[in-house]
Amino acid sequence: MEFNITESIQILTKTPSVISNLLKDLPETWIKTNEGVDTWSPYDVVGHLIHGEKTDWIPRALIILGENEDKAFVPFDRFAQLKNSSSRTLKQLLAEFEELRTENIQKLQALSIDEQTLERKGIHPEFGEVTLKQLLATWVVHDLGHINQITRVMAKNYKIEVGPWTKYLAILRDKK
Amino acid sequence: MEFNITESIQILTKTPSVISNLLKDLPETWIKTNEGVDTWSPYDVVGHLIHGEKTDWIPRALIILGENEDKAFVPFDRFAQLKNSSSRTLKQLLAEFEELRTENIQKLQALSIDEQTLERKGIHPEFGEVTLKQLLATWVVHDLGHINQITRVMAKNYKIEVGPWTKYLAILRDKK
Repeated sequence: MEFNITESIQILTKTPSVISNLLKDLPETWIKTNEGVDTWSPYDVVGHLIHGEKTDWIPRALIILGENEDKAFVPFDRFAQLKNSSSRTLKQLLAEFEELRTENIQKLQALSIDEQTLERKGIHPEFGEVTLKQLLATWVVHDLGHINQITRVMAKNYKIEVGPWTKYLAILRDKK
Repeated sequence: MEFNITESIQILTKTPSVISNLLKDLPETWIKTNEGVDTWSPYDVVGHLIHGEKTDWIPRALIILGENEDKAFVPFDRFAQLKNSSSRTLKQLLAEFEELRTENIQKLQALSIDEQTLERKGIHPEFGEVTLKQLLATWVVHDLGHINQITRVMAKNYKIEVGPWTKYLAILRDKK
């Protein structure tokens, strides 16, 4: 499938409500349990998504499309949310994510992206030249990947309780 | 984590709105694309979930808790939705799933399940004796597994479009 900006915005717009729907009102154990050492809980994932809204997707799109000739991206810290052990509730994090995402979608729409704009380039610290289209497609897949992760982390809470049915539940064997 | 009936009902109640939220208003291509031969599209998954509401979870719970001495489950056809090539829209399927799930949660609540009830048994066609607790834990994990699958199938639509970022997007390499 080819990248489509309208469809991508549709999916990006859905993410905060999908995640909020999945997690809201669940007890702390479902929110804070992870898959073991160096893995993330649903709570950590929401913190990571917030950090992406602040430092990754739109800031990088603006580097690509801005006047400045230096097109180098600032490296994205994929573990930032783990360093700031936060005292905020999940509810507060979900509200912040939704607010930031709404603002960022508005900024994205204001860029009036067309086929030509999508081919403009920035410099990724590891990959070198990348296009705006690749950045935006990655944003969509990154969202879906973290919804995927949240459902997997949650499912594993009942790994033992399903008994013999584990045989037909591939999600319980999926790795981090 | 130990099985908890209240928390399980919370999660089971969320599923129709989570899936509807993920899929509604998306173009046909996002709904009907699958991962290749013998894999399911998001549309197929919703059909499968409907079939489970009709023939699997609550019917089996009622066999376990009912008066009848024969505790053998009817085998569940995991591919039923593929046989009835349906002309129904996704919107109709989502509405049917939500309606059936609401009814089934009401039936589940009416069973007033306690610790003792959870240990009662039925006979699975392949596994032999299974408990009501295992059946209900499986229902929860099965839901989460299919939300997980839908996000993975969707993400793979942009497998090529993400360019070099594929390296950091494990969801694009996850198997069916």
